[in-house]
Amino acid sequence: MKHPAACPCGIDVHAHVVPENFPSYIGDRLPAEWPSMAPAHACHRHVIIAGKVYRTVSDGCWNTARRLDDLAAMGLAMQVISPMPELLSYWMAAADAQQLLRYTNDCMASMVNEGGGHIAALGAVPLQDLDLAIAELEYVVKTLGFAGVEIGSNINGVPVGAPQLDPFFEACEGLGAAVFVHALRPAGMERLVGPASLQQVLAYPGDVGLAAASVITGNLMSRRPRLRIAFSHGGGTLASLLPRLQQGWDVFPELRQSLGASPVEQARQLFYDTLVFDARTLRHLVDQFGAGQLMVGTDYPFNFRDRMPVERIEAAGFYAPTAQALLHRNAARFLHLPAGAPAA
Amino acid sequence: MKHPAACPCGIDVHAHVVPENFPSYIGDRLPAEWPSMAPAHACHRHVIIAGKVYRTVSDGCWNTARRLDDLAAMGLAMQVISPMPELLSYWMAAADAQQLLRYTNDCMASMVNEGGGHIAALGAVPLQDLDLAIAELEYVVKTLGFAGVEIGSNINGVPVGAPQLDPFFEACEGLGAAVFVHALRPAGMERLVGPASLQQVLAYPGDVGLAAASVITGNLMSRRPRLRIAFSHGGGTLASLLPRLQQGWDVFPELRQSLGASPVEQARQLFYDTLVFDARTLRHLVDQFGAGQLMVGTDYPFNFRDRMPVERIEAAGFYAPTAQALLHRNAARFLHLPAGAPAA
Repeated sequence: MKHPAACPCGIDVHAHVVPENFPSYIGDRLPAEWPSMAPAHACHRHVIIAGKVYRTVSDGCWNTARRLDDLAAMGLAMQVISPMPELLSYWMAAADAQQLLRYTNDCMASMVNEGGGHIAALGAVPLQDLDLAIAELEYVVKTLGFAGVEIGSNINGVPVGAPQLDPFFEACEGLGAAVFVHALRPAGMERLVGPASLQQVLAYPGDVGLAAASVITGNLMSRRPRLRIAFSHGGGTLASLLPRLQQGWDVFPELRQSLGASPVEQARQLFYDTLVFDARTLRHLVDQFGAGQLMVGTDYPFNFRDRMPVERIEAAGFYAPTAQALLHRNAARFLHLPAGAPAA
Repeated sequence: MKHPAACPCGIDVHAHVVPENFPSYIGDRLPAEWPSMAPAHACHRHVIIAGKVYRTVSDGCWNTARRLDDLAAMGLAMQVISPMPELLSYWMAAADAQQLLRYTNDCMASMVNEGGGHIAALGAVPLQDLDLAIAELEYVVKTLGFAGVEIGSNINGVPVGAPQLDPFFEACEGLGAAVFVHALRPAGMERLVGPASLQQVLAYPGDVGLAAASVITGNLMSRRPRLRIAFSHGGGTLASLLPRLQQGWDVFPELRQSLGASPVEQARQLFYDTLVFDARTLRHLVDQFGAGQLMVGTDYPFNFRDRMPVERIEAAGFYAPTAQALLHRNAARFLHLPAGAPAA
């Protein structure tokens, strides 16, 4: 065994799904970005979007047996799956997106069923239309039994903390649905110098950081105090922004007046994954956000993922209750898992 | 004395100047953004840009005696002044900007002369035109004796690390001019939810972080190994981006091929100020970037500044040589101060 010391109860809240195939579009006007799959090398397929290879992905994306093997090899007991973010399709007509997302949600439900208690899911909703989004939220929570939803760090440019999205978060709070915010079509692309992969590497964390900051400056947790909302990639750049935001709140009267609670206090009500690839940074996030707010995230099964999430927590040298909180207790709280789950 | 323990030798590399008055424009077509000053409450003036109050500033901006008093009260021996970044005027016709910047550079030279060895300066150059910028660089370094220049985190949207700016950095390296990169007209504005001050609070550090990342991914230090370049606001979000950039360099072949040295290695060749308002974050920056790369920065005399830079370093609990490096040794290296300076 690679992990003799770790409890076999770790929960990975950041892992993705791409279906093995996509359905044909049923409608009058095929959206340019309707995805399809094409064969690639062994155990891999190309995701084709708008006539180009968007990404070449491995069968861990759709093969539950492969996923369960890889999960055990990482020393984890449970994985929470969500769609590859580009599939969220906010840029399609909402009814078309809903058709695609319903298919993806149903695929994920099958994987949960195959997972023998080791797989949970966060569904996708067409947030470009609040009514359709809330209807799909109800479907994934009430019919499919999902823990909640994944949403983008912005919805066609609208920050997660913008007041216009409040009816959606009201519905999430009412249903007890967890919300996982993932980087998507990020700001700052015009500042990158280098290969296209820098979008994921540099612009993704920037957009997540601004999304989390918008939730703070937009007072989402004051309006929706029972909401459980988490941010990918360790909250992105939020850790760098937070002390300056706190100081700005001390200095600028208009900022102090517009915020219901201090930025640091609000940041410690949000959840974050551990996907930062560095033990020192992980310790810094626990210092900034609190030991009760971080949860394992791996970005499985993509190539740019953390293959050693448990070792990363061990390397950070936390005392045992903190390590246990990061490995499973915080995720159980975020997901509202029944006591004793998972795999107890 | 407030600082009995600190050596009286601290150097603040991040402090700004606004002239008490601006000259009339000499030319055919007054640029819309040519600044002027208007009276405000006691010891303050309004900076008027494009017909509006851009910022109301205190007389510390132009009054050298006031600046020296405030410097001593902070327990510091020397301050490096640079223009309020909005004055950099990259958006004006280059010849117009050069006229304004020449005036500002000459004002700063007067303040250096009045400063009795306690004030040094970083000049401004019209980087929208490389030839004019290099000519003004030579003027501020050779004629005025400045330590170097302040530049924006982007030049009309062009990231600092973009290859097209290389002739300017070649000239800086050749002249031994220090370069201080300050946030300016940042990316990410469309993601902010709240009052206008969030531009400075949240978008500034994001733009500085992407500027520093562009220097790394653009291999500036490989091309110009003797260049001394520093980033404001503790490097902004770079500390959050760096471990992910390092991991991306490990994972993406195109990124590994395009970078001459690892991101972490490159980041430890850059300088940063300490302007992060938080002792824990300061410790984290020293962990990430190295004890030899950070220098005191206050943003004096603006309201959103660090009024306790020495206490902040003391609160971080560094061992004495690290604290001394942050207080003055690193800045002396960045500025190429003669041994024994300042105020020895």
